[in-house]
Amino acid sequence: MNPQSAGSSEYGHNPNSFGFDLHHTDAQSAARRATLHTPRGAVDLPTFMPVGTLGTVKGLDMERVQETGAQIVLANTYHLALRPGDETVAALGELHEFTGWSGPILTDSGGFQVFSLAERAQVTEQGVTFRSHIDGALLDISPERSIAIQEKLGSDIVMAFDHVVELPNEPAVVAEATWRSVRWAERCRRAARRDDQMLLAIVQGGLDSELRRQCSRELVKMDFAGYAIGGLSVGEEPVEMVRTLDATVPELPTDRPRYLMGVGRPEDLLEGVARGIDMFDCVMPTRNGRNAMVFTDEGPLRLRNAVHEHDRRPLDSACPCLACRHSRGYLRHLFQAKEMLGPILASLHNLTYYQRLMADARSAIEQDSFMAFREEKLSRWKAGPIEYVCP
Amino acid sequence: MNPQSAGSSEYGHNPNSFGFDLHHTDAQSAARRATLHTPRGAVDLPTFMPVGTLGTVKGLDMERVQETGAQIVLANTYHLALRPGDETVAALGELHEFTGWSGPILTDSGGFQVFSLAERAQVTEQGVTFRSHIDGALLDISPERSIAIQEKLGSDIVMAFDHVVELPNEPAVVAEATWRSVRWAERCRRAARRDDQMLLAIVQGGLDSELRRQCSRELVKMDFAGYAIGGLSVGEEPVEMVRTLDATVPELPTDRPRYLMGVGRPEDLLEGVARGIDMFDCVMPTRNGRNAMVFTDEGPLRLRNAVHEHDRRPLDSACPCLACRHSRGYLRHLFQAKEMLGPILASLHNLTYYQRLMADARSAIEQDSFMAFREEKLSRWKAGPIEYVCP
Repeated sequence: MNPQSAGSSEYGHNPNSFGFDLHHTDAQSAARRATLHTPRGAVDLPTFMPVGTLGTVKGLDMERVQETGAQIVLANTYHLALRPGDETVAALGELHEFTGWSGPILTDSGGFQVFSLAERAQVTEQGVTFRSHIDGALLDISPERSIAIQEKLGSDIVMAFDHVVELPNEPAVVAEATWRSVRWAERCRRAARRDDQMLLAIVQGGLDSELRRQCSRELVKMDFAGYAIGGLSVGEEPVEMVRTLDATVPELPTDRPRYLMGVGRPEDLLEGVARGIDMFDCVMPTRNGRNAMVFTDEGPLRLRNAVHEHDRRPLDSACPCLACRHSRGYLRHLFQAKEMLGPILASLHNLTYYQRLMADARSAIEQDSFMAFREEKLSRWKAGPIEYVCP
Repeated sequence: MNPQSAGSSEYGHNPNSFGFDLHHTDAQSAARRATLHTPRGAVDLPTFMPVGTLGTVKGLDMERVQETGAQIVLANTYHLALRPGDETVAALGELHEFTGWSGPILTDSGGFQVFSLAERAQVTEQGVTFRSHIDGALLDISPERSIAIQEKLGSDIVMAFDHVVELPNEPAVVAEATWRSVRWAERCRRAARRDDQMLLAIVQGGLDSELRRQCSRELVKMDFAGYAIGGLSVGEEPVEMVRTLDATVPELPTDRPRYLMGVGRPEDLLEGVARGIDMFDCVMPTRNGRNAMVFTDEGPLRLRNAVHEHDRRPLDSACPCLACRHSRGYLRHLFQAKEMLGPILASLHNLTYYQRLMADARSAIEQDSFMAFREEKLSRWKAGPIEYVCP
């Protein structure tokens, strides 16, 4: 990890609206403190983006999402294209008016669903045909169609359509999907029309460091406004993810944002930040919250556990979230009684926890103390690995 | 309906904490503008109390409940005694600390469940044995036990334990339950120990006006701090409820609050206010909201209806609630996609609608124009009777 010098750039079709300022790189790591400028506001980097798959961060109104400290949210192209449909979102004023979120919004491209809904997806060089998980109707997504949908949705940051495969996998399968993703990125770049959207390319390459490097170089040649690292957090060991980041990030330009897609656990975020990642997203804080698992500095708590029954303490006395105005006993009661407020408050707490973690990481980078901050957090979380809870 | 003169009273064990001020009675009806003082704050009357059965108004955190304009909330003794148990609520700091609601809280007594869970309830003169609707365990509630539970819960306003029966019903059944309720009210009065709680008696008598009058007189002799009218909204016609109010309310002292339990639809609230009722509660705004039915001045809307798909208008452009910052199309999408935010926003809107209705009613009473206000509302709602939606 090499410290990188500060710098800034403006790029894209609308140079007055989008921009990236690199303020400082940590003295002991590649962690960097930067700002992403968008027409809808600035984002302090590194940042965590809450996931609002269908135009709502599950269980929370957008005021509550903002109160967690979030500056940018994510929505899903595949899911919105099926329900309510991109034409309907457009008719209702595009994503910002639709959701009520006035800050920046990033949409993914549908490429992740090629992996997560693999049994419902048929891939050709032209694109992917999905059989809807709702009603079985067919939905074609090609690079051009993905961009067109994202333009209808009106997000601020749009992602190239890529081909994500399960890991570990056959080298030939990974290589084919990687080079297809490169060809598709070029098609996305040509298809993009809106000058109020910023298009990011996605590096693929599985766990093959050399393939990741080659993919990065090809995409960097195309001069995208930013780069994502995709195809991770899809079944590989955490150590493999970290090794892949070590191979990939140095290939990416220092003056553009870097986004590690779909990651992850709090410890994964810190590992990514240490390697120069600027942006993250994951359903974990909300999905785990809905399932009564909350993050704390002492490790995760399972709120349904009987040990909390008479516990008057909040989850975290330093946390400003609404959940932490209540006792653990009350939160447990809400889950035992299957009250909606349980998932609501646990999601709110977890998102607040992630945002505070990123805010503290930003401060630590500014003070050249990120690695000490990371060590301290990891040692306090030592209670064990945090599970990914499926509902 | 006779206009009644203004007056005020202080009563109970702690005269500095509880009190009732009657400010004005409407010139054309018995509608009255009053204030109920409690140690936890004042309540502008007439008022509507959101129902927080298990210590949470379903789907909303207490800040959102407060934002609707609510000044007092209700919680249910039977349900809390079963889950998490009154001892657990006490260990967690009683209802106010437990729920995070710092304003006044009213608890019912469990008497309504003698009706609503009749097949699980065995009634004797001593009390009622319930077979838990959760696990079949037995729960005994007598007048003394109901008061003891409510004292453990730490509510501000506690209700006498009564015997509620289905209507219409055999005269002998209604009479027996009514006189038993009177005897139980006296037992409750003797059992009450806390001087920071206000105990209200509940008038029964079914649809028999003479029985209602007799019951009222017996309870008034016992000098309670306020009087509720119970056993209505249990299957009878609305016109029967109104007739029963006409017989009952004139028997109640003018210097004490009057509470019509479990009522009701917006039109029922206005009928009750016109007859001198001060307090109401009902699950309708939240339960119907969870089921995609929202109240508006043009009558109820069913949000799942396809007509709303592309509608960019809010439910009510004059409504200050969070739901009304969104389009009808977005709210429909949330219900179609089974997103939690649909029930959350619809519940928030409906509670806000009820609170605005009561605030407007209070203003109308102050201006001696309540009957014109009522006529105007009823004519705008003419779309038809509002259904009670069961989940």
